[in-house]
Amino acid sequence: MDTRRTFLKKIAVGGAMLSIPGIVSAAVVKPSKITVNKGDVILFQGDSITDAGRDRNSKTPNTPSMMGNGYVMLTAGNLLHKFADRQPVIYNKGISGNKVYQLAERWNADCLDIKPNVLSILIGVNDYWHTKYGYDGTLQKYESDYHALIERTLTALPKVQLVICEPFAVPGNEAVDSSWFPDFNGYREAAKNLAAKFDATFVPFQKVFDEAQKSAPGNYWTGDGVHPSLAGAQLMAEAWIKAVIK
Amino acid sequence: MDTRRTFLKKIAVGGAMLSIPGIVSAAVVKPSKITVNKGDVILFQGDSITDAGRDRNSKTPNTPSMMGNGYVMLTAGNLLHKFADRQPVIYNKGISGNKVYQLAERWNADCLDIKPNVLSILIGVNDYWHTKYGYDGTLQKYESDYHALIERTLTALPKVQLVICEPFAVPGNEAVDSSWFPDFNGYREAAKNLAAKFDATFVPFQKVFDEAQKSAPGNYWTGDGVHPSLAGAQLMAEAWIKAVIK
Repeated sequence: MDTRRTFLKKIAVGGAMLSIPGIVSAAVVKPSKITVNKGDVILFQGDSITDAGRDRNSKTPNTPSMMGNGYVMLTAGNLLHKFADRQPVIYNKGISGNKVYQLAERWNADCLDIKPNVLSILIGVNDYWHTKYGYDGTLQKYESDYHALIERTLTALPKVQLVICEPFAVPGNEAVDSSWFPDFNGYREAAKNLAAKFDATFVPFQKVFDEAQKSAPGNYWTGDGVHPSLAGAQLMAEAWIKAVIK
Repeated sequence: MDTRRTFLKKIAVGGAMLSIPGIVSAAVVKPSKITVNKGDVILFQGDSITDAGRDRNSKTPNTPSMMGNGYVMLTAGNLLHKFADRQPVIYNKGISGNKVYQLAERWNADCLDIKPNVLSILIGVNDYWHTKYGYDGTLQKYESDYHALIERTLTALPKVQLVICEPFAVPGNEAVDSSWFPDFNGYREAAKNLAAKFDATFVPFQKVFDEAQKSAPGNYWTGDGVHPSLAGAQLMAEAWIKAVIK
């Protein structure tokens, strides 16, 4: 018996299956909660990390000008390729500087009217960060505003598939010093708790950035500790796809 | 014997192996000629498809402004993530409208001085297309100019690892009608022949776009038949990575 046959026999019999694409992966990878059907609308919402310099006048989904140059563009490219047979319709409506209450202020036009089938939200770093510059919001406000926003969304769009992304910060860089911790961790936990409460898919970005620093230092992945580099945007896109689609 | 074991037995015994990531892929995928070492410089050169709206004043490698919003950004994101432990230094110097002779005019500043370890060139569609608008170049000129450009490059940078990308056109769209064929095919073949002659890695973009139309129509992948959509840019990025890296 040659080596390849021996190996395949081992993975068949030995229990610990590898991740294998196609027919086998359906059996071994935990099925995602998210399904993408023909013509489904996928909306990315958030702050500057999502915005990423997009052209806010762009009204055309699936275009680079709509996507900006961050993780949404890289994720959208992946989705448009992977689901070419379903031709999803992808929007980015992130706006730089936003906190949860500012999402709420523009939620009718920038979310509910768009009627997403899949809604991905990344919000929270400004809800903490801006408290250092005069913003009087608290963790409790973040959590209760976010809770209300999700309830409002589910009332208007009961079938929407929710993706809640973990806010993250990489210490030791320009914008993120030790004073952020442990306070900032509360915002991460609040997002995670809301994902669990509403049975949303959770994307653990903090863990992803922590792990990535085994390969390259923090400033390779994010220049200031908050905004990802191109490498960091790709890291986020791959994490999003892995958490949401596979 | 359960279904999974039956299936694995089939792929072990039946001959036609699937593409499987990780340990098995090393056995079944042809090794690439390209290696990326710590700090290696990777340069993308070409026309508007490579340019893709990049900020030509950007001097900072690895940034979205340098990369533009096309296949180079998507490929660079992938490379920066995959090779985080080697921190490659990636440039885009594509310029919209360029033909081979225009690459040659700016080759010292925009290639040789940058001293790439890996040089990827996608050029040729304008060498054909512009003949419809008064350009008096021929297929023979394309081939001989391209040949001279590669020889000049290898003289200056004898260790450079060359990637030659196939020019492509998707008929049935705004810019590409039946009058393109079979003449345009000569440019594709010339690029492929040069890749073989100089032992360069070849990226078969035409085949990739042809295959992609089994999943979605041509105008999903390229609006005008020449310039890729975001979905088409991702298609190109994945093909580049597959051909060059894996």
